[in-house]
Amino acid sequence: MLEDPFNRKKTRKLWVGDVAVGGDSPISVQSMTTTRTYDVEATVQQIRELALAGCDIIRIACPTISDADALPEIVKQSPIPVIVDIHFQADFALKAIKAGAAAVRINPGNLARKDEELPLIISAAKANKIPLRIGVNAGSLDKEILAKYNGKVCAEALVDSAMQEANEFEKLGFEDFAISVKHHDPVLTIETYKLLSSKIDCPLHLGVTEAGPQFQGTIKSAVAFGSLLSQGIGDTIRVSLSADPAQEVKVGKEILMALGFRERRLEIISCPTCGRGQTDVIHLAKEVEEKLKDHPKLAEKPLKVAVMGCVVNGPGEAREANIGVAGGAGKGKIFVKGKVIKTVATEEIIPTLLAEIENL
Amino acid sequence: MLEDPFNRKKTRKLWVGDVAVGGDSPISVQSMTTTRTYDVEATVQQIRELALAGCDIIRIACPTISDADALPEIVKQSPIPVIVDIHFQADFALKAIKAGAAAVRINPGNLARKDEELPLIISAAKANKIPLRIGVNAGSLDKEILAKYNGKVCAEALVDSAMQEANEFEKLGFEDFAISVKHHDPVLTIETYKLLSSKIDCPLHLGVTEAGPQFQGTIKSAVAFGSLLSQGIGDTIRVSLSADPAQEVKVGKEILMALGFRERRLEIISCPTCGRGQTDVIHLAKEVEEKLKDHPKLAEKPLKVAVMGCVVNGPGEAREANIGVAGGAGKGKIFVKGKVIKTVATEEIIPTLLAEIENL
Repeated sequence: MLEDPFNRKKTRKLWVGDVAVGGDSPISVQSMTTTRTYDVEATVQQIRELALAGCDIIRIACPTISDADALPEIVKQSPIPVIVDIHFQADFALKAIKAGAAAVRINPGNLARKDEELPLIISAAKANKIPLRIGVNAGSLDKEILAKYNGKVCAEALVDSAMQEANEFEKLGFEDFAISVKHHDPVLTIETYKLLSSKIDCPLHLGVTEAGPQFQGTIKSAVAFGSLLSQGIGDTIRVSLSADPAQEVKVGKEILMALGFRERRLEIISCPTCGRGQTDVIHLAKEVEEKLKDHPKLAEKPLKVAVMGCVVNGPGEAREANIGVAGGAGKGKIFVKGKVIKTVATEEIIPTLLAEIENL
Repeated sequence: MLEDPFNRKKTRKLWVGDVAVGGDSPISVQSMTTTRTYDVEATVQQIRELALAGCDIIRIACPTISDADALPEIVKQSPIPVIVDIHFQADFALKAIKAGAAAVRINPGNLARKDEELPLIISAAKANKIPLRIGVNAGSLDKEILAKYNGKVCAEALVDSAMQEANEFEKLGFEDFAISVKHHDPVLTIETYKLLSSKIDCPLHLGVTEAGPQFQGTIKSAVAFGSLLSQGIGDTIRVSLSADPAQEVKVGKEILMALGFRERRLEIISCPTCGRGQTDVIHLAKEVEEKLKDHPKLAEKPLKVAVMGCVVNGPGEAREANIGVAGGAGKGKIFVKGKVIKTVATEEIIPTLLAEIENL
């Protein structure tokens, strides 16, 4: 693996609690709680579960005063940095900062009296040394900007809106911000972030918003983030799914692993089955994954395991695997680093792999 | 939607049966059968199912003489063009061409006596006016090329191998070929296809090979194809999964829809739930999808339906939806083209949406 295969853009770095975002920091995975925020116990419980699933930074909504009042306790108990999501109520942003939030996300398009409210929020953020995220959404685009583009949401309109906000922040002497410009269409999302990245050096938070149900949403986020991250764009990601947020974290981590931004502890290199296959690769691959996913060896070093249906692509393609099996009729060739070390009966494949892994 | 948002590279066009590949042709979805090819009935049955799922071109393996003998009947009965996959036996390639295969995929690295065999295959392809695919895989890289790169599979080695084959084809007066250069690592896959695309104008068949079990494989393919297609690279795709090939087709189509290369008949724009949501968006979105996915209206025109958990991003973000609902406590606002037309009780949301869709 190359050190920086995609020539990632070096944005300025900021800190969300103890998680660095931007610059050369690892790309972080975010999600958002789905509990009632005022229900401290449920919210903290969900944050703990998401942290265990690999969530680096959690965002929580704060639509009511009861939610705002719960923030100090949530921040205190959360194992990961908490970003508070503010739309309409500037005073909740101030409460969040006072509560010790690691960052606040504001959608300036939704602040009713922005001229008065924004300087207050920025002063509080400065005083508490926390960053802000400018979250522009298609749904809350400034009416004047929208009119300039004939009422049509387009990359230019979203970027204009983001840059206008960024300029206001900078005029107020504040540079400690990230930006997101989300849309439900991955094509527009890709175009928008590319344009934005060409104009500003702050960290970018990637997201396809309202991406939809799990299957559609997973693929929308994967293609958009795949495109952007492989073009060097993006510092922190959030996969939005109409599904359990643990699934958002799982998909986010998988996208980063697929692109080499995170190390994969267990990689299964398994072929699709085809008319050549003499082994039930689908089940064998699943079984290998199941048996190995919590294997103690993985804590020592990552493991690549090849599960191949035949000898055509077997040992050769799996040369880079630590260990593997190439199926045959009623048997399997076990190989280590591309060399066949023994041939065993089908039912001995899994036990042999496990035994050989101990010897690696 | 822009006509060509990603400035797709105009490769030379070829025909796989009645499916054009390359140039300005739509990007096609391929899959591969998992049946024993010699079992004509099972193979044709699976091809029919995959065609129904949206597969444009099917590939079948041909490892034995019984498989080769079954090809004429399979080709005759298949509702979509059949590509025959050949590794070691050049004579099976000749049989496939004689059987009326729409194309043959050969892995020249696996032909034992390539100097004699390749001209025969190319003559037969020319005589029958069918294209060939050069399928280079990491596992069967030419030993000399591999040695040049210190035994390490890298983008340059894969591209060198592909270009060497392409040059041999062209020297034999044959230009009617596509190329694939597959690897199990999306990072290397992206790098390899980008390099290859800069060197040759033939159509490119995209694939991440041995992508692994369904979840991992889906995301590996989505990030790699998302990256490449959004940079204008790729003419036909095959998602490889250790799973039912119908799933490969489903993922392939979804990737193309996410990138705007295929029209989505039903798009659900649904928000992730968050602490603001006053509606169970996950279930509502699923129910809407379920109720609408086979709706007869979809045959007339595509439909975008927004399912939003609250009014923050509700009507505004869903402005581009044909119809939608923004949830509230015990009720939902139904909107058409971003304007609220009525407010109904939660249990009336689905019936009201269905009734309003009739009126659209």
